[in-house]
Amino acid sequence: MMPLPARAALGQGSFAIDGSLRVVFEGHTEPRLDRARQRFLDTLFRRTGIPQWPAPAANAPALTIRTAGPSAAVQEVADDESYRLTVTPAGATLEAPTPLGAMHGLQTFLQLIQLTPQGFAVPAVTIEDKPRFAWRGLMVDSGRHFIPMDVLYRTLDGMEAVKLNVFHWHLSEDQGFRMESKSFPLLTGMGSDGLYYTQEQAKELIAYARDRGIRVIPEFDMPGHAGSWFVGYPDLASGTGPYHIERRWGVFDPAMDPTRESTYKFLDTFFGEMTALFPDAYFHIGGDECNGKEWDRNPRIQAWMREHNLKDDAALQAYFTTRVQELVTKHHKIPVGWDEILQPTTPKAVVIQSWRGAESLADAARRGYNVILSSGYYIDLSQPASEHYVVDPLAGPASKLTAEQQKHVLGGEATIWSELVSPETIESRIWPRTAAIAERLWSPADVTDMASMYRRLAVVSQTLTWHGIPYLATSENMIQRIAGGGDVDALKVLASVVQPPKGYARHDLKTYTSLTPLNLLVDAVPPESDQARVFREIAGRIADGSATPGDHKQAREWLTLWRDNDAVLQPTLAGSALAKELVPVSQGLKESAAMGLAALDAIEKNVPVSAAEQAEQLAVLKGLEVPRAVLLIATVPGVETLVKAERR
Amino acid sequence: MMPLPARAALGQGSFAIDGSLRVVFEGHTEPRLDRARQRFLDTLFRRTGIPQWPAPAANAPALTIRTAGPSAAVQEVADDESYRLTVTPAGATLEAPTPLGAMHGLQTFLQLIQLTPQGFAVPAVTIEDKPRFAWRGLMVDSGRHFIPMDVLYRTLDGMEAVKLNVFHWHLSEDQGFRMESKSFPLLTGMGSDGLYYTQEQAKELIAYARDRGIRVIPEFDMPGHAGSWFVGYPDLASGTGPYHIERRWGVFDPAMDPTRESTYKFLDTFFGEMTALFPDAYFHIGGDECNGKEWDRNPRIQAWMREHNLKDDAALQAYFTTRVQELVTKHHKIPVGWDEILQPTTPKAVVIQSWRGAESLADAARRGYNVILSSGYYIDLSQPASEHYVVDPLAGPASKLTAEQQKHVLGGEATIWSELVSPETIESRIWPRTAAIAERLWSPADVTDMASMYRRLAVVSQTLTWHGIPYLATSENMIQRIAGGGDVDALKVLASVVQPPKGYARHDLKTYTSLTPLNLLVDAVPPESDQARVFREIAGRIADGSATPGDHKQAREWLTLWRDNDAVLQPTLAGSALAKELVPVSQGLKESAAMGLAALDAIEKNVPVSAAEQAEQLAVLKGLEVPRAVLLIATVPGVETLVKAERR
Repeated sequence: MMPLPARAALGQGSFAIDGSLRVVFEGHTEPRLDRARQRFLDTLFRRTGIPQWPAPAANAPALTIRTAGPSAAVQEVADDESYRLTVTPAGATLEAPTPLGAMHGLQTFLQLIQLTPQGFAVPAVTIEDKPRFAWRGLMVDSGRHFIPMDVLYRTLDGMEAVKLNVFHWHLSEDQGFRMESKSFPLLTGMGSDGLYYTQEQAKELIAYARDRGIRVIPEFDMPGHAGSWFVGYPDLASGTGPYHIERRWGVFDPAMDPTRESTYKFLDTFFGEMTALFPDAYFHIGGDECNGKEWDRNPRIQAWMREHNLKDDAALQAYFTTRVQELVTKHHKIPVGWDEILQPTTPKAVVIQSWRGAESLADAARRGYNVILSSGYYIDLSQPASEHYVVDPLAGPASKLTAEQQKHVLGGEATIWSELVSPETIESRIWPRTAAIAERLWSPADVTDMASMYRRLAVVSQTLTWHGIPYLATSENMIQRIAGGGDVDALKVLASVVQPPKGYARHDLKTYTSLTPLNLLVDAVPPESDQARVFREIAGRIADGSATPGDHKQAREWLTLWRDNDAVLQPTLAGSALAKELVPVSQGLKESAAMGLAALDAIEKNVPVSAAEQAEQLAVLKGLEVPRAVLLIATVPGVETLVKAERR
Repeated sequence: MMPLPARAALGQGSFAIDGSLRVVFEGHTEPRLDRARQRFLDTLFRRTGIPQWPAPAANAPALTIRTAGPSAAVQEVADDESYRLTVTPAGATLEAPTPLGAMHGLQTFLQLIQLTPQGFAVPAVTIEDKPRFAWRGLMVDSGRHFIPMDVLYRTLDGMEAVKLNVFHWHLSEDQGFRMESKSFPLLTGMGSDGLYYTQEQAKELIAYARDRGIRVIPEFDMPGHAGSWFVGYPDLASGTGPYHIERRWGVFDPAMDPTRESTYKFLDTFFGEMTALFPDAYFHIGGDECNGKEWDRNPRIQAWMREHNLKDDAALQAYFTTRVQELVTKHHKIPVGWDEILQPTTPKAVVIQSWRGAESLADAARRGYNVILSSGYYIDLSQPASEHYVVDPLAGPASKLTAEQQKHVLGGEATIWSELVSPETIESRIWPRTAAIAERLWSPADVTDMASMYRRLAVVSQTLTWHGIPYLATSENMIQRIAGGGDVDALKVLASVVQPPKGYARHDLKTYTSLTPLNLLVDAVPPESDQARVFREIAGRIADGSATPGDHKQAREWLTLWRDNDAVLQPTLAGSALAKELVPVSQGLKESAAMGLAALDAIEKNVPVSAAEQAEQLAVLKGLEVPRAVLLIATVPGVETLVKAERR
């Protein structure tokens, strides 16, 4: 299960699942619950491959759902999401105060299904569950790369499966304005390359999300990151234009003009339209990374600043933010913004989304603002799940807050910024790691066992397939494409042990634009190599003497495979434009594996090596740590561990 | 490419594909062509992973499509489907008399895309192409297992990719009536378990098919195979009822009553509704496998037959068929039926679909009927692609027809009867083998090289993925499910070399109903084991002395893998209800592999074996040919070849 429930007690025996399973409602019902029931059954029968019986007997085993009453008409942060699930060999009961809890309980039931020697079954268990944090989100950046509706729908399906409840939709960027505006049609008409969502689609997505207990919060980033607005409406900007849709990545100069009333008039109308479209109580206005250069270059703006005693760009942005917040509030929404919007004058109603770090989060909470943590949850940065899993919104500086202040920490949001994801690759960047973040935000704080997390994450990976999320197959298909008819198996050997460099390193290694194909091996492999992680663990055990004979055997098998793979793979690499950059990567894998084998021999035969020899090996390995073709050879750290373990 | 074009001549160099590719129309245009263009580009960019440029330069390389004029408003058998495709390094031109040819040419262009060391490209080529047969179909049985719309849409996508042009939709069976009738709502109301298509969905499917150059022909099977009609309308039947939706498979007694005028009144109204819904000129009335038992048991019907001088059930069915044909003709459609409808009195306008064999096809054509071949194209029977590929509508008895008579052979149809397919498995039964049949029906008669076919079929398998058909991933997921968290790799070793028994043998080995889960290994593996086929070929070369050292090495590697896999796999089998029946299969694989290894040793070392020893080995292998757990161990024939090759 992921996320693990707050409390669970295993019982005796199990509840057998077959095509006769009935789901019976008691208490409150609503169409949303009927749809949840159908979705549950569809997933269950997809999961098991069992056909549903057309007319199960009235006394067939049942899952009874008892819902006390409705949740809020528009889902609220304070909504009760708790549930109680009781499974016995004779049947199952799911009790919840609201449909939200009932829907979470259904997902828990699905995760409990196991294939036993006797058939599919759910173990007898009593679960009492509720989330630790009320705000458990995923931000999808549809601005930089447009993400089609079908991908978003599948993403919402996955969010439901791991009990996330906020879909934060980043809808405008320098590279594209993605939401239809009827008041200002040139926003998408000139700022989107034709890639945008209609309001009808937005409404459908909001309904789809509500059906899954998920709130939808739109973000329109301003005053920076707003270049695409200005292509159609240059008067909004602080520079002279002409403006164009940005194809590069980074922080750019175009910024809204905070000094003209026409800007606020525009935004007032725009907010009126968008706040009517998005029912959630919260409305995200961005506010990050405005570099102020257009302001500095505009004499009219400079004069205005002097006139109004605004001493610098930060002060001008604070003025802008205050005005924007007032507009959002006027339209009956609670503003949300990134760290930068927090100024001395910021009203307490504003919610701060922290991307800069735990310190800024704690600081805002201390000052009485509601806060959401995203620092540490940037899933676009190719960090392993373990690094996200240890990030706790109430750890570090926040742990020193009073209980009252800690209540301001509403939760957190994973963020998939889309410079380096395409519609094809985004799902393999979101999943499965977001499930680990979902567990951090739902489960008790003391659920921290890393080995257990990785064990369960592997199950989630496969489980998401039954929810219709095809990201494993997509990676497979991309590798097939890269092989170009060559030796796919050999390419997979390499693919299993390479991974993208962490953080922003890819941008240093290659120039990417929005037109760069993301169809190379770095885009096909998961951000984290499971095989390399396991190898590292084995190497650690060999080094500290706790390894089993099986560990030694596995290490030798893998090292041999990696060393010998290069010769098999090279013809394939030579034949494919998408693979030829992998020549040095495959060679590097071979070199590191050969050194690993030598080290393993030395360790197993207890042969000493000289300090000079060892130092030389480590120097070579250091060289192999450097990315090749924008890829890390993830086996290198494990080999380093082995080399360091050689007897001197 | 599959199907291979009628004529192709390779040129010099190649046409590079990138995100700037433009598709330009000249001559006739229509919205269908615009959509075909978009679909082409979507597939092309999915295939390559390249993002489409928002605004390619006006002088960017282009594919120019020149269409002379429209095709018929409702696609006709006689429509011109030819095209001419010219690719040079500077650009490509596609010329066609009608949009049908243009669409076929676009699919050819997609199949020509290759990944080279320099990037994606299409080789310079001139292709002049047109189909050998005008009727190239696939029949999907939605009656026995309901097949959801999304699967049908994907199937039409696949049909477009391989240039099939008739979707024959088998819509009623004893096990379910699947098309909404507004005149007779109880047909689906009581005869479908709620699993049926609305007329709105049918219209959408017809439009979707037309967009892909595919005609849609509905089939309503009568007078037999019609039990589901009688659940809501028992007066149509010849027995006393009550009638129920059949859950078993086979030929059942319920049959329409040919002796009452009310039957024809009902059918007249029903045909009126359905012929208005389906625009195609042809209308399929089934007619197969009526056993007549309800007629024999009904004294009123027997009396009526005597009164009308109908001497037996065949005569009564002939009477019924004539009446039904008259009704269909009255509604301005050309009737199509299975072999059985052909009677001395059958009007020449009727089309005969031959399922009984080549003899009945030739016979009907000789008598002047238009005919379609399905015998030999029953893809539900788990035959290898090679067996379908050799079936030529104009071979065998038909080869003795006059040229004029041969014109009556319109083409053929693959048929996927759905006793043993579910929505999950149907696509892996349709693909890739249907592509081989499509080639038989499109390409020149002398395109018969089996090795070439298998080579290209493997490419098609992967290509269909880029058309959105996920059947490879589905098989993978099913194997994951069967492993139940156990050793998937070991299960895959077994899965790669087992296959379902051919023909109707599965029904003899196990009782299936419409509620039997189709989630075991026999449903997850392809109908044909590629690895076992290649192994058989290698064994053949070893036996006749033409094997390379690589052949010997490969045979030894595989045999060793198969022999040793059992020990690894058994714990997984013990833990999964879906896998435990595989225990003797895995053991059988081990036994056969061990014998294969011994034979290989004997051959390589030139050690003689006694006749008795050899006979004993062959006897054991004979035993291993018998299906276990409804599965064949497909390595056995190859091992038999090796054993027979031992020196005595």
